[in-house]
Amino acid sequence: MNFNIKEAIEVLERTPQTLEFFLSGLSESWLQCHEGEGTWNASEVIEHLIEGEKNNWIPRLEMILREGESKTFPPFDRYSHIKVGSEKSIEQKLLEFKTIRTKNISKLMVLIEPELHLELTGSHPAFGVVKVKELLSTWVVHDLTHIAQIMRVMAERYRMDVGPWKEYLGILKKE
Amino acid sequence: MNFNIKEAIEVLERTPQTLEFFLSGLSESWLQCHEGEGTWNASEVIEHLIEGEKNNWIPRLEMILREGESKTFPPFDRYSHIKVGSEKSIEQKLLEFKTIRTKNISKLMVLIEPELHLELTGSHPAFGVVKVKELLSTWVVHDLTHIAQIMRVMAERYRMDVGPWKEYLGILKKE
Repeated sequence: MNFNIKEAIEVLERTPQTLEFFLSGLSESWLQCHEGEGTWNASEVIEHLIEGEKNNWIPRLEMILREGESKTFPPFDRYSHIKVGSEKSIEQKLLEFKTIRTKNISKLMVLIEPELHLELTGSHPAFGVVKVKELLSTWVVHDLTHIAQIMRVMAERYRMDVGPWKEYLGILKKE
Repeated sequence: MNFNIKEAIEVLERTPQTLEFFLSGLSESWLQCHEGEGTWNASEVIEHLIEGEKNNWIPRLEMILREGESKTFPPFDRYSHIKVGSEKSIEQKLLEFKTIRTKNISKLMVLIEPELHLELTGSHPAFGVVKVKELLSTWVVHDLTHIAQIMRVMAERYRMDVGPWKEYLGILKKE
């Protein structure tokens, strides 16, 4: 196992500003492009990250600390932000993400005593028993997944434009 | 075709600082982790990006403008940075990347008149005839590929740590 709370926080605290730097001021053509019907554009990915800050990571952590395995997490709706929609600009969304992430990292540091809490277990609606350290590792990898997704979605826009170089560009190889 | 030089530059100019923000100050465990023997860590990806700035994108563009299809690009060694190795810190590498990228964007803006040059053709050692707009689109997608790669490489480090959540994390699904 490689999880370490200090190193995990290094990633968690960098994600919002990294995305803010990359996405702020980009043309709408980059922000609105996606990989086809039913897929997310960069702006929708940020909404999803905000939703996770509100309803997933810290609420589930608090539930494990409070209830252990006795109560199952409420399911996290990965599409709720799509249903609600949003009129906010990308800059507003990025600021919201940064603000709530900063608060959540502070909460995390208050809530978690690594020697005491990382092995505590809760009850996931699909997976059954899960550990605090698995939840926190997933929070980190979830950030990395969605940063990579934004890159892949934007790369897709130039699929035809790169001509023969497509062969060398792994990001254009569909899974 | 979606390529547009203004939008392409939006990405090219954001990449170095995005990576600088994300990678500066990270623990060595994040910077040195990789996906197995023969794969690159984050620090080696930055060396590869520097190498591309020196020997790939602008030199090839200049060659097309100067020689057209009459002379084949010298092959670009995608592993040269690995052979040379480097003792520099990640911060030094990121600064070098940012500096040379900034110069190269300035050169690009001087060299290219979009109405005149995007359809010009050169000769690629493996692909044959390639267009300026394909080369420039590839430069952009190459950035996106390698940002996504860094995220994937770092995610790999927590493959075991996420426990059952692996199932939901596309980034951990090996191609």
